[in-house]
Amino acid sequence: MTKPAPNPSKIKHALTARRADDFAAWYQEVISAADMAEESGVRGCMVIKPWGYGIWERIQALMDARIKAAGVENCYFPLFIPLSYFAKEADHVEGFAKEMAVVTHHRLIADGKGGLIPDPAAKLEEPLIVRPTSETVIGAAMGRWVQSWRDLPLCVNQWANVVRWEMRTRMFLRTSEFLWQEGHTAHATREDALEETLRALEMYREFAENVLAMPVMAGEKPENERFPGAVATYSIEAMMQDGKALQAGTSHYLGTGFAEASGINYQDREGTQQLCHTTSWGVSTRMIGGVIMVHGDDDGLRVPPAIAPQQIIILPMLREDDGDAALLAYCEELRRDLAGLMALREPVRVLLDKRPGKATQKRWAWVKKGAPLILEIGGRDAAGGQVSVLRRDQLWREDGKPAFVGEARDSFVARAAAEIEAIQQALHAEALARRDAQITRGIDTLEGLKAFFSEDQKYPGWVEMGWSRPTGAALDKVVEVLKTLKLTIRNTPQGGAAPRGVCPFTGEAAVETIYVARAY
Amino acid sequence: MTKPAPNPSKIKHALTARRADDFAAWYQEVISAADMAEESGVRGCMVIKPWGYGIWERIQALMDARIKAAGVENCYFPLFIPLSYFAKEADHVEGFAKEMAVVTHHRLIADGKGGLIPDPAAKLEEPLIVRPTSETVIGAAMGRWVQSWRDLPLCVNQWANVVRWEMRTRMFLRTSEFLWQEGHTAHATREDALEETLRALEMYREFAENVLAMPVMAGEKPENERFPGAVATYSIEAMMQDGKALQAGTSHYLGTGFAEASGINYQDREGTQQLCHTTSWGVSTRMIGGVIMVHGDDDGLRVPPAIAPQQIIILPMLREDDGDAALLAYCEELRRDLAGLMALREPVRVLLDKRPGKATQKRWAWVKKGAPLILEIGGRDAAGGQVSVLRRDQLWREDGKPAFVGEARDSFVARAAAEIEAIQQALHAEALARRDAQITRGIDTLEGLKAFFSEDQKYPGWVEMGWSRPTGAALDKVVEVLKTLKLTIRNTPQGGAAPRGVCPFTGEAAVETIYVARAY
Repeated sequence: MTKPAPNPSKIKHALTARRADDFAAWYQEVISAADMAEESGVRGCMVIKPWGYGIWERIQALMDARIKAAGVENCYFPLFIPLSYFAKEADHVEGFAKEMAVVTHHRLIADGKGGLIPDPAAKLEEPLIVRPTSETVIGAAMGRWVQSWRDLPLCVNQWANVVRWEMRTRMFLRTSEFLWQEGHTAHATREDALEETLRALEMYREFAENVLAMPVMAGEKPENERFPGAVATYSIEAMMQDGKALQAGTSHYLGTGFAEASGINYQDREGTQQLCHTTSWGVSTRMIGGVIMVHGDDDGLRVPPAIAPQQIIILPMLREDDGDAALLAYCEELRRDLAGLMALREPVRVLLDKRPGKATQKRWAWVKKGAPLILEIGGRDAAGGQVSVLRRDQLWREDGKPAFVGEARDSFVARAAAEIEAIQQALHAEALARRDAQITRGIDTLEGLKAFFSEDQKYPGWVEMGWSRPTGAALDKVVEVLKTLKLTIRNTPQGGAAPRGVCPFTGEAAVETIYVARAY
Repeated sequence: MTKPAPNPSKIKHALTARRADDFAAWYQEVISAADMAEESGVRGCMVIKPWGYGIWERIQALMDARIKAAGVENCYFPLFIPLSYFAKEADHVEGFAKEMAVVTHHRLIADGKGGLIPDPAAKLEEPLIVRPTSETVIGAAMGRWVQSWRDLPLCVNQWANVVRWEMRTRMFLRTSEFLWQEGHTAHATREDALEETLRALEMYREFAENVLAMPVMAGEKPENERFPGAVATYSIEAMMQDGKALQAGTSHYLGTGFAEASGINYQDREGTQQLCHTTSWGVSTRMIGGVIMVHGDDDGLRVPPAIAPQQIIILPMLREDDGDAALLAYCEELRRDLAGLMALREPVRVLLDKRPGKATQKRWAWVKKGAPLILEIGGRDAAGGQVSVLRRDQLWREDGKPAFVGEARDSFVARAAAEIEAIQQALHAEALARRDAQITRGIDTLEGLKAFFSEDQKYPGWVEMGWSRPTGAALDKVVEVLKTLKLTIRNTPQGGAAPRGVCPFTGEAAVETIYVARAY
């Protein structure tokens, strides 16, 4: 049974900005309206507020379970990396050397004018870099830990903050400090390392689809987009509602280059010293930016239930009179019953919001935060054993009013877990349909590509095309052309359609399929 | 039924160092033998390895649940704090200004000699400090977030890394970078803030006793030991096996001073602007140092089951022959049955260690790591439905052999959960008895105190004595005396005995009871 579609002219949306008009302004407004994060006053760094951090905690918990299930062990490595470590891996440094936070002193002293300055007597002999990634310091540890084939594979992961000095920052998407996990593994053979690289990629793909309800294309990045020093880089790429791509996770096969730089050797079964093959893979708070741009709407965020800090909000319509006690007792019993349910294989997360304030104001605050289900309960509902239910992903009625549906309390409790799972599914289905509609095929000339992206299409989406996999100077030429068009090659999707026709860049026969898009 | 005590002369301990001979060397050896952490090559920073980090993850999970249950919400604040923020709170700066990591540049460039140097063109206008604690930056956020009495109490917490440049470091106890949680709360009244300060203190006390199996004294620190800028500082203090005290958690009532410096004001119900009363409280990876020094023995670490990454280790005695398959199948079924049990209100954590290597070597590795229960299973055990069980806290038989006990497999499974809980209790009881035996009472003169701590007692323990609570110059004199004796006042225990007699320092009537001790 399809519900009648809401009439757009009758709806008064909760946000000021519209996705269709100004996507960037809309993005910022969602973050602030959902109370997820704010500028910190420290250049390029944000404060992640409880609702935003709660989403990160959910992402962490569910990703960490997958990482542990794969036999990878968590460790913690130093925040600081001595400058000399960066000299070890030339390619790697080239990619990161530019913008990093450099610690040069270890003490402050009074400047004699009531202020503080770095103490010139406490200058470090060797500057320390705040880790932009921990490749070098983890490589050094692996060099100590790996001796024999018995020590392999060595698979470690860390959850940490990293710093890359960014000139233009945007909350969650690109901040100077961000939170992430970085997996690092060492293997005896190329095959083992490649298998691990693809295992991590598949872990990310499955996580994006099932947990974030975010459809992604998993595949290999082109040579020019590889992680500095990597032999092969794989990514998951998600379609944002403005048609841009977001790289939401990467997995790298590093060959033996990092092992050579860090001395990660092992004695094989025959007693010969061999270099390890290493990998690394990571996802970050950037995923939250993706969730916003995939699922948000003109009323704010919509959080997939699997990562929602709270899945059901109970809002009692308090009147500050004698009736409140009975109403609260009714709501508390409802909360307890709902909290006893299991959905998505975890206990249901339900919050009874008893804070002072007007019920409608509180309702809209939760709509903007994107809580999947909102229950409003008045004195009459309590007396009659009713609840009034709002699904965040089906917010509006045909007449432009919020689509609350009255229902017997027990009937709602009986179907609440299924409803939570249905919302998870619905958000994924909606995002998948939108993504597929935003992919264009059949462009096989450079002129066609230029025309497509220069057209007056505000949000052109991605182009799926053939790729002859040029290298060297030929690739450089392609990269130059892409740059002038502000385009990037996202990846070659795994299990994609067999390549057809010619590569628009080279005119040669296509050997692969690629996605070309604007990107974050 | 009391078992016969093992004969010390017959035991060949797993470690080289003895607690009784060289406690500091023993401490380092435990960390390395248990494979918990190692020096990183970065000054004052350690690498926390999987077993050590796994213990921290357990501490985090169980503490975080308590923090959330108290209605405190997790956030994340920037790693960097602008230098100017430190100028806001004079007392606070005084306490921390000395040793901090200072970021002065945001880019590296080639030095023309194949190396890298901080780019002089990328010098920051204002240096950034790597947070030694987040008081100032969280205070600034609270100043933005609190407007009205309706916003109070505002209770946030963050799990983060912090840096204090330490000259002499010791793994887990004092490292330049360490991991911790810091709770920060703002309240309308002094009473509310003090109540929160004591709630956090009680949370830490209960956690130390029930989770770490570590008996502690909870109480107020003397004036000279207060957190810089605090009105009152409370701590939990634990007795290490060498008789020294370890401050394992602190909770501070900060009065209105921090609120004034950060502009944390609210409009009360009558419309008047008021300053908030704030608190802060924290525990860190230091707790792990405490666990080592409270529970470790001459065979390595002993991990309380509540924080053991694995509670039961199953060691199949593999022979690399045809029998291994049946043995492994038996062990896997045992693992599954044990993993289905609940102990200490969580699923039992059990590891089947199938790695290559000699079974006795692997056994001793797990003994040194302190896994609570070790099961060795040979082919005959598997055939006969038996297991051979070793309790880490009852390691040695009378004759100096490891105290393995054979038992029917089903009988062990039936009592495994109770056994885990019994080990948790036993470690606490042992630590409590040891602590109480290391507290001396009845010293009421300064001469007596000097004599006690100058005696040829290697590990003198704590002295419980009367305290007249001197302030100002009188307190300064006491602090000076304490310094010459290398002693500190730990705290005034809550609910301690009524003070009796005179204060050894002042000769005045005691108004409180205090503990005096050497400390980490």
